[in-house]
Order: sequence, then C-alpha cells, then structure tokens
Amino acid sequence: MALIVQKYGGSSVADAESIKRVAKRIVDTRRAGHDVVVAVSAMGDTTDELLDLAHEVAPIPAPRELDMLLSSGERISMALLAMAIHSMGFEARSFTGSQAGMITDATHGAARIVDVTPVRLREALDEGAIVIVAGFQGFNRDTRDITTLGRGGSDTTAVALAAALSADVCEIYSDVDGIFTADPRVVPKARKLGVVTSEEMLELAANGAKVLYIRAVEYARRHGVTIHARSSFSSAEGTLVLGPDARAERLAQGEHMEEPIVAGVATDLSQAKVTVVGVPDVPGKAAEIFTIVAKSGANVDMIVQNVSAAATGRTDISFTLPKSDAAAALRALAADQAEVGFEALLHDDQIGKLSVVGAGMRSHSGVSATLFDALSSAGINIEMISTSEIRISVVVRGSDVAAAARAVHTAYGLDGDDEAVVYAGSGR
Amino acid sequence: MALIVQKYGGSSVADAESIKRVAKRIVDTRRAGHDVVVAVSAMGDTTDELLDLAHEVAPIPAPRELDMLLSSGERISMALLAMAIHSMGFEARSFTGSQAGMITDATHGAARIVDVTPVRLREALDEGAIVIVAGFQGFNRDTRDITTLGRGGSDTTAVALAAALSADVCEIYSDVDGIFTADPRVVPKARKLGVVTSEEMLELAANGAKVLYIRAVEYARRHGVTIHARSSFSSAEGTLVLGPDARAERLAQGEHMEEPIVAGVATDLSQAKVTVVGVPDVPGKAAEIFTIVAKSGANVDMIVQNVSAAATGRTDISFTLPKSDAAAALRALAADQAEVGFEALLHDDQIGKLSVVGAGMRSHSGVSATLFDALSSAGINIEMISTSEIRISVVVRGSDVAAAARAVHTAYGLDGDDEAVVYAGSGR
Repeated sequence: MALIVQKYGGSSVADAESIKRVAKRIVDTRRAGHDVVVAVSAMGDTTDELLDLAHEVAPIPAPRELDMLLSSGERISMALLAMAIHSMGFEARSFTGSQAGMITDATHGAARIVDVTPVRLREALDEGAIVIVAGFQGFNRDTRDITTLGRGGSDTTAVALAAALSADVCEIYSDVDGIFTADPRVVPKARKLGVVTSEEMLELAANGAKVLYIRAVEYARRHGVTIHARSSFSSAEGTLVLGPDARAERLAQGEHMEEPIVAGVATDLSQAKVTVVGVPDVPGKAAEIFTIVAKSGANVDMIVQNVSAAATGRTDISFTLPKSDAAAALRALAADQAEVGFEALLHDDQIGKLSVVGAGMRSHSGVSATLFDALSSAGINIEMISTSEIRISVVVRGSDVAAAARAVHTAYGLDGDDEAVVYAGSGR
Repeated sequence: MALIVQKYGGSSVADAESIKRVAKRIVDTRRAGHDVVVAVSAMGDTTDELLDLAHEVAPIPAPRELDMLLSSGERISMALLAMAIHSMGFEARSFTGSQAGMITDATHGAARIVDVTPVRLREALDEGAIVIVAGFQGFNRDTRDITTLGRGGSDTTAVALAAALSADVCEIYSDVDGIFTADPRVVPKARKLGVVTSEEMLELAANGAKVLYIRAVEYARRHGVTIHARSSFSSAEGTLVLGPDARAERLAQGEHMEEPIVAGVATDLSQAKVTVVGVPDVPGKAAEIFTIVAKSGANVDMIVQNVSAAATGRTDISFTLPKSDAAAALRALAADQAEVGFEALLHDDQIGKLSVVGAGMRSHSGVSATLFDALSSAGINIEMISTSEIRISVVVRGSDVAAAARAVHTAYGLDGDDEAVVYAGSGR
C-alpha cells in the first residue's frame, strides 16, 4: 500500500462531468488499497475569469484582496470533488491551503512555500479518508492572510505535499500522455519518454516545453520527490521524472537504464533579439548595458558579443529576452545612448530558439556536431549559440524553428514509428 | 463619528458596475467621518448556481463540503468590494466569517451563532480601514470547519457584527426603499414606514413580508441593535426597526412617536389548508393528529377546530402549513387513518393568508371589528381566524387576498397619496 499524491489541473475538472470522472479515478486508486491525497486547480478558466472580474472593479487590484479572490476558485473545485467522491461511497475531506498547513512567505501572487505542516491531512488519512487539497494557495503566519503561489502553483502544491507526507509518488495529470521528446504538434514523430531526469526536465521546461512547471520540478528535485506525468483521459503509464537519488536507486537495483544522450528537443517562439550596435570596445561597456537592461525588469536569456572590428574599435552585442520585455529594455537603452556611446539599437522579434537537452551530453562528445550538421543539411542558418552542461541552444529564424526541430529530432534518432507514439529503449 | 454596519445583498453586488456603486456608497459613509463595517452576500445568483453545481456532482451533497463550497461566493464578492474601495483611495480589508470571529455551532447549512469575537475587525478599524466581512458564514471551533448560516444568513451576520461591535446602527440595503405598510405590488397605495418596532417587524416577516429575515430581526431585538432598512439605489431614508430599548429612549427624549394602531398588512400565498374530516370527538385526538403531522416534518401555522356536531359525535379540524409540506403531512395522516379514526382528508392549496400587524392593538379595541367589516363590505369570506398580541390573521380564498389587502389597508387609514409613496404621521 502506497501513499499517492495526485494533481488535477483546470481542464481535468472543467465541469460537473469531468469532476465525476476524476472522482472515479481517485476512488479507483483508493480501492486498490492506496492512501490518496489530491491537489486540485480551479475549474476550467475560473482563475482567469476571476482575474478579469478583479480588473473590472479596480485597475490595480490590491494584492491581499486579489489572493483572497483567486483562492476561491480552488475552494469550489475541491469541495465539489469531495462531494462527488462521497456520493460514490468513499469518505473524502477537502482542505484549504491554510487548513492543509501550506505555510508561505507574505508575497501575494507569488508566495514561496516556507514550511508544510500537514497535521490535519495525516489525521484524515489515518481515519481512512481521501484528502483533497486546494492547489495554488497557502497561508502566511505573520499576517494571517491567504496567499497564492503564482502560475504552476497547483503543481507546486502537489509536489510540496508529496515531500511533506513522504509520498511514494506524485502523479501530475494533464491532457497529454506524458513528457515527449518534442512537442508533437511541431514534431509529429515525437515519442513519449518513459523516464527523464529532473535536470533534463528543468532544461526542457526552461526552454519551451510546457507540461510541468519549472518550480514544481525544482522543488521535487530538491526534496527527492518522483513525479509521474500522465493523462487524466487514459490509464496508460506516463513519464517518470526522477531525481538523482531515485535514479541511482534504480541503477543499483539493476534496472537497465540506458541514458539517452539526448532526451528531447524544445522550441521557443516567445523571445526577441536586441542588438546594441557599435559599442565602444572598452572595458565595462557590457556591464553598463546589462545593468541598464536589468533595471528595466527584462529577463535576459542568451548573450552574444561579436569580436571587435579592429578598424572601428567597436563591437556589437546581441541578447535575447521575452518579447514582452523588449519594449522596456529598448526604452531604457535608448534613454542612455549618449552615456553608453553605442551607435544604434536593433529589435528582431522573428527569432526562434531551439534547444537540445540530454544528461548524456556530459559524457559524450560530438553532440553539438550532430546538431550543427543537421541544421546545415536542412539549410538553416544558426544566429546565436548558448550551452549548459546538459543543453545546447541555438537561435534561428522563427519560421525555420519547426523544420529545424524535426531535422534535429531525426538526427538524434528520437523519431518514433509513424503509427504509434510509444517509447523505445529508455529503461524503467 | 459613528460606527455603522452596512449589509448589501446579492442584487446590490450582482456585477462589477454594482460593486463599484456600492463601493462608492461605502466610501461616502467613511468620508463623512464614520467607521464602516460591511457584511456582503455573494454576487447575484451565485449561491443558487453553486448549489446547482453541487447537485450535478452529487444527489445529496455532503454537508461539510457544501458549506465549504457555498462560502466561496461571499469570499469572491468581499474581495472584489475591498479592491474597488482601494482603487478609490481608501484602505479596505476583507475577512472571512472565520477571520471575523463569527463562531457557530456545527450544524452545516443552518449554523447558529454562539459567539462573535471580532478582534481582527477592531484592529483594522483602529488602523482606519474599512472592514468588509463575508456574510452567511461562520466557523466551528471544535471541528475547525467553515459553516453557513442558512437563508437570510447575511442579514444575521450584519446584525451580529453590529451587536458585537456596539455599532450605532445596522443599515440593511436592498432594492426596496424600506418596510412598507403592505407589498406595493399588491397594494399600490402602500406607504413606506418611518419607524416600526421589532415585534411588529417579526410579525410582518413571519406572515409574508419579505424585506428582512425573521432571524436577523429577532437577533437585533435581543441584542438591542437598531436596523435601518434602506435602498442601495437611493440616498433616501428608509425604515428604522427599533427594539424596545431604542423606542423607550426616543420617547424619553421627547420624540413624538405616534404609535399607529396598525403598522402594516402582510399577505401570504405560500400556504395550503388541510382538513381532517370527521374526527371522533374524544379527548386526545387533536394531540394524535398533530403529533403525526409534526413527525412528517411539516410546520403547522393556524389551527381551527369546529364545534362538534352533536348528532354525529364527530368534528372537523383544519390547519394551514407551507404548500411544500402538505404532501408529506397528508401521506403521514393517511397512513394512520384507521388508528386515528377520521373519515376523510381534504387538501386546499388555493388559500391566502392576510395579516394585520400593529403594536397599538394591545391598547385599542375595535381593531378586529374594523378588519371584519372591511372584508364583509368587500364581499370576502373569512375561512379561518388566528390572533396574537399584536397580530390578527385571516384565511380567505387565494384569489381574494389582494383585494382583501387593499380594502383592509384603506379601512385602517394606511393609504398614501397617489403620486408619491411618503410616510405621514409616524414620528421619528
């Protein structure tokens, strides 16, 4: 008998029928003899609708009140879910973030979890009840106010509960079958992964993949929680996201865990490129530029500095950032043009970022060569390159990114069979 | 500077525009120098919509979970109201029933208030903030669960807060200008009352008048809270509902308080009449009958027993009850027909109940004569009569009740001028 934490998102509980379907799934898990704790999001688009309502009454909604408002969404879905389970003959009890012991700092709208004290949850589990917890919210002990955790908050709630309760697994349900080697809408031959490490998952999520939130994956990694990303519309196995300890344990138990060199390919069309043209090639200019950009609130991703042209004594510096941050960064730089001394600013919002992620990169050479060959053969030009221990990213034309992803996916042997998307090779 | 408690119902906060309108009203009250505490209901039909949703997922929703669900409605409206006030430049803080110290018993769906400890509200008021409290809900200390107070709960919340905070007045806002001498839709010449005693208000509310809930009026009477029933769509004065102490105080201060003999006329079309025909005229039969009816859950109102017919040794007993209770009562009586020994059961759901209420009845004779004369002149037959210290009720044909109300209203001199509904005579 295991303790299983399950998380269901908004689309899984969008209406009464869906809620009943999820309730049945939960009841089946309990019937199999497991203890079940469920973190649930608000129904469908409730959170966005409440946000719209807030902006109708106030241009800048007071943060404390906004959290009080938004946390209502999860209260509604958790109570309905508990009711549905009751009507199927099983004891179920719902708890708000505060009642569940989800203690956070006082940052409304983006609260960080500082402690989890699930006393009432353990009592309920001991009494044999199924426990339902409102996702996305917590409680600050100093102000005694409700807080919300920011986007992806319900995933984080689920993982935090799993860690605090020493759960055997944290199942995160969505409307996709698991983590794929690439977005199947961009790369039709993408395969579902059986296993992925949390580091690989972090890189994939940070670079465009959308199934799990970075924050939840990072929390899981730090607290040794195994995540099972699966579909609420099927009983098929999904993708296991293993922290380093879990992985080592499986290897020790003799599981054949082939470590694919490349786990997956991620694409990102949300960035823009800014080029500061003709920067005087003297020490300190890069520091000046990025201080100005940081103050504008922009989140810089990749940076490339060209070699200075000897004749002019000037160089160009390019960087990428979210499209939504570009205007503020450009305004800030333009305001200080005389001070910094650059010649011009270029703004390119037609770029695409392609990333190749794999833990195996650490121990294998030739990974980048394969990438550059594949892109060259496909006639795709590389504009910027950036790497980490287990990731290589390139910037290409936005219109080329899908074709680039497919070419690269094939080059790394990631393609699945045409008829079914099944995983091959990655042992579990 | 006064401490004013205000209550706004669902139709007053039905959408963003209404919320902003109510926020402005609250801000104007604060600007005038008063401390303000507001109890608010859920927006529009939210509570009924949540109830419907609950029944979609479970035929008999678990009580604890239903309260968790329904209490979300008030959380949403209170947070939006606080946001709107903030954006008008005033500090406002919203509190759930639990945060406001509204302590109740553990009866989900119909919780009774056992204590009110508004510590956080006082702190907020001391800091100069406007306080918004979620109506309709409370908290049970033993189970640590959220509870809801049942229909009219927000009125009760407001009055309970006013009592606990020793407020100067409890303003209850609705979409009508105050308490009228009769329902203006039934009696077009009805006038708005300037003052009414809480006993009169209780009788009017118990017999069909719908502006205030009995429970809130009773709580106000017991705790010495003055209620001001007014319209959220106008700044006109409404009706003051005075408890005995408040009234005595005004009289002592020399206010000319003409005590109208009849304060108002109430009509009620929600009842049915059941007649148990041919009951053996022996001791104990009435007790048997009403024990059976009580066990069926029916709420009996008026009872009439005819004089026994000497020839038959049998009598008829009639009683009235809510139409929705009739089927259960009839089934229960029919099941025990042999035991009780009656001959037949009659069910009449076409009755109407007319009540005349006035504290002055205690000291004036001839009140009932005026009533019977007026009905006789209007050609309306009286089927049953029942009285209390300050009320006379009659049962007539349902189709006659509106005409009866108008005739009686005129007979007691309650009619207002045709062009405006203003009060005349009742000093304040």
